[in-house]
Amino acid sequence: MHTVLTSPGKTVTIGHDQPFCIIGERINPTGRKKFQEQLRAGDLSAIEKDVAAQVAGGADVLDVNMGVPLTDEPELLRKAITLVQSLTDLPVCIDSSVIEALQAGLETYQGKALVNSVTGEDDRMELVLPLIKKHGAAIIALPNDETGIPQTAAERMIIVEKIVRTVEKHGIPLEDLVIDPLAMTVGADPDAVKNTLETIYLIREKYGLNMTLGASNISFGLPHRHALNAAFLPAAMAMGLTSAVMDSRTPAIVESVRAADLLLGLDPWGTNWIMRYRAMEAAKAAAEGN
Amino acid sequence: MHTVLTSPGKTVTIGHDQPFCIIGERINPTGRKKFQEQLRAGDLSAIEKDVAAQVAGGADVLDVNMGVPLTDEPELLRKAITLVQSLTDLPVCIDSSVIEALQAGLETYQGKALVNSVTGEDDRMELVLPLIKKHGAAIIALPNDETGIPQTAAERMIIVEKIVRTVEKHGIPLEDLVIDPLAMTVGADPDAVKNTLETIYLIREKYGLNMTLGASNISFGLPHRHALNAAFLPAAMAMGLTSAVMDSRTPAIVESVRAADLLLGLDPWGTNWIMRYRAMEAAKAAAEGN
Repeated sequence: MHTVLTSPGKTVTIGHDQPFCIIGERINPTGRKKFQEQLRAGDLSAIEKDVAAQVAGGADVLDVNMGVPLTDEPELLRKAITLVQSLTDLPVCIDSSVIEALQAGLETYQGKALVNSVTGEDDRMELVLPLIKKHGAAIIALPNDETGIPQTAAERMIIVEKIVRTVEKHGIPLEDLVIDPLAMTVGADPDAVKNTLETIYLIREKYGLNMTLGASNISFGLPHRHALNAAFLPAAMAMGLTSAVMDSRTPAIVESVRAADLLLGLDPWGTNWIMRYRAMEAAKAAAEGN
Repeated sequence: MHTVLTSPGKTVTIGHDQPFCIIGERINPTGRKKFQEQLRAGDLSAIEKDVAAQVAGGADVLDVNMGVPLTDEPELLRKAITLVQSLTDLPVCIDSSVIEALQAGLETYQGKALVNSVTGEDDRMELVLPLIKKHGAAIIALPNDETGIPQTAAERMIIVEKIVRTVEKHGIPLEDLVIDPLAMTVGADPDAVKNTLETIYLIREKYGLNMTLGASNISFGLPHRHALNAAFLPAAMAMGLTSAVMDSRTPAIVESVRAADLLLGLDPWGTNWIMRYRAMEAAKAAAEGN
């Protein structure tokens, strides 16, 4: 199953037989006070730095979220997407819970975007899926519904089944459905990651669908988060995770993903790994030369 | 299923509900020319450094291998085990393919040892298993046999089944059987690690047995091996691996194991992780203070 995303200059394919798709999480005002203030004042310049850092770090797709309270989110998202597309040819993941913002984003984006996200709630799916169908986009869907976030994998699978049926009913190909198996912090529940890993395994076994999740969530509230995130991704990839909205600026985390690519047979003979290593050594030598 | 190893001062339990068991791989002359020469001259002093470094790094058990060609391996192993037990109370993994050496090691070791290893070949099992039974030790068994090392998980599972039946026939409790699912380098076969991970998953599902493997093998011949090894272990742990004979001296690799413990619910509320972090910060502060 291949989820294909495009920009005018680039095609990115998410799939179980592809290297992991790193969706850079950084263009998001959540928890970034200064960025929020800038966006409220109509200043989008910080996005330029965020794009550059994530491209340099190895992102394959860039998430764009403009969820700042008391702003015209659809308008802000239009501007941000236009700006991002002027800076890079990486495809974009349009991230909002506001339907008008998703609509504005889809109208603005040049290419085939990934939309982040819709829940398994009936009314949300009835609002969002026609938009996805109309624009031929791909959609991230979360297996939570009116009753909240289910804890166990079995409960999540029931909602996944409902999502799959509804997506099919709307005439959207399953290739364009990406399930978010829900990653919660292990600091609040020792079984949180185990439940996520089991959900990933079951979704792959039963449907072969692509999946993504907010990888940084798992370490929320714990010390030394980078190391936890770096350990989480290879485990999730072994279970069947094919992409993540994640930190693409921390070398150790991106490195753990590329190492897992090689280990899982997604970088045959280590071609990418060895190129990456040589570039790293060259950069080190250049730094020492200065 | 708990595999319990002991020394006069310590008990280590390997199990799916336990933190991962790190078996330090360092006391092994393979590929260590100088150490080989020292051992040939009867000089075991390097072992003192190896023990100290592995204990400091966080090993739970120490592998002891004295396989130097043209030496009296049983005698060398006796001396090495006595020395190791005088230096640390960590249990020992007695590592040899020579039956007389295993016998000497088991006679010398104080406590309940893990023996590394027996293959699924009938004549090997008939030689080694009575020794294990007699000494009440635990045994690592490899699912390869007269026909060589099987590539696929399904083929390995056939030999695992044969091993399980033979171990039971010898009256050894299955708690004392630790399967090595065979880790080969992904540099020689892009599917090598995938096959190992699948074997781990199947062994856990079907038998619930404990498992260990030579973790460093997977990255043989590739650059930047530490990062590959650090990514492999969380993936293997998520699949059901409960211990590894591994590098316990490289902080990033041990850290990835302890991170995965937390992620997999084996370090509830991150008690060990937070203690480890505090010790790391304290060491950093002390180093900066000097």
